[in-house]
Amino acid sequence: MISLLNEGKVKSVYEFETDEVTIVYHDKVTAGNGRKVDFPEGKGAVCCKISALLFELIGTYGIKTHYLDCPSDDTMRCTRASIIPIEVVVRNVAAGSIVRETTIKEGTKFDWPLVEYYLKDDEKDDPLLTESRIWAMGTFPLRDMEQTAREVNGILSKTFLDIGLTLVDFKLEFGYDLEQNLLLADELSPDGMRLWAEDGKSFDKDLFRKDKGDIVEVYNSILNDLQLRKM
Amino acid sequence: MISLLNEGKVKSVYEFETDEVTIVYHDKVTAGNGRKVDFPEGKGAVCCKISALLFELIGTYGIKTHYLDCPSDDTMRCTRASIIPIEVVVRNVAAGSIVRETTIKEGTKFDWPLVEYYLKDDEKDDPLLTESRIWAMGTFPLRDMEQTAREVNGILSKTFLDIGLTLVDFKLEFGYDLEQNLLLADELSPDGMRLWAEDGKSFDKDLFRKDKGDIVEVYNSILNDLQLRKM
Repeated sequence: MISLLNEGKVKSVYEFETDEVTIVYHDKVTAGNGRKVDFPEGKGAVCCKISALLFELIGTYGIKTHYLDCPSDDTMRCTRASIIPIEVVVRNVAAGSIVRETTIKEGTKFDWPLVEYYLKDDEKDDPLLTESRIWAMGTFPLRDMEQTAREVNGILSKTFLDIGLTLVDFKLEFGYDLEQNLLLADELSPDGMRLWAEDGKSFDKDLFRKDKGDIVEVYNSILNDLQLRKM
Repeated sequence: MISLLNEGKVKSVYEFETDEVTIVYHDKVTAGNGRKVDFPEGKGAVCCKISALLFELIGTYGIKTHYLDCPSDDTMRCTRASIIPIEVVVRNVAAGSIVRETTIKEGTKFDWPLVEYYLKDDEKDDPLLTESRIWAMGTFPLRDMEQTAREVNGILSKTFLDIGLTLVDFKLEFGYDLEQNLLLADELSPDGMRLWAEDGKSFDKDLFRKDKGDIVEVYNSILNDLQLRKM
């Protein structure tokens, strides 16, 4: 018997074995914490394939991830992990909320990438957390998450630069496996990143947020470029 | 000729001399960044008098403030200061936004008080700042502001405890005088604090936010108790 463990906004997590889960990526895209929604065909498969490729790549650098393999185009077999309710965001260039909430101008490059933390709580709208607030909330592996996030940033920035894209920012989620090892979890797709081409065009979910293009087509072009780069 | 330098939500700042300003406290109270407003008689005078008393008290501990004297009940003469656009909030007990934006329960006591920073920008709704965001914004005297905020917290916590109130949290603003000395500025009244009696009753602007009482009456009782304590 397979039981649903967690129903996310665009993915469903099913129990597979005691220590494994199956994650199904749906043909669905949301923005503004679910306030804007669409169901483009092929979206689930392309996000699943990009995530698989990037998790594999990151794994080759010795970083532990929850990824195991993909039994089908839109389905990922992963190590079961209890997710830490803190989202980690790495910013190389200012865009999005940091521009709305500070005096920093869009496009400002950070010499030392910013690592930020957000509470994973849709009802509260994923508020920004300070480190003091996190320490007051409880015990979290903040320094380990930060270090891994910076390593992943190095790997992904180089990878996307190879295919002509700047990794502006991205979100990571972490979890603990049954032996309490810290794992990189969730997904790694343009749904959780900002990617800018040299002409400033977005190759990420901002296309959907701002009604500026077909995300499935663009995501597939990224997948194709990443696969060619790999060979 | 006296010219208006700055019109705040409940105060007006007039140029007095090159290096001095006159701040008039209005009979006005706002909440939710100006979305809720009232004009209770005597509100300006009581906030001005409490602020004057607390600035004087803090000054006796060697902390530099903008306060000079009060030419009338609702008017304060101050050193002219260019205000740093970062509001400093000290939290001894969890209440308000920190409860809404984290998993911390209301009433949680912090062993080490939290010092937080917010962008002073009504249009952006005064967003929370992380230290990383502040460093990326520019150069600010963060450590000096934090240290002064912690010293002020010690003085005010003790003072309010003497009159039966817990200082839950409070906001400070800082500025530079013409010689670039860092000064504690703005006001120090229950408009910018949370004060809880032993029975949990609020003695601050939450009375207005939650329609739970006459703030001018309560603020005057605080003023009276502070004046009696001083003698």
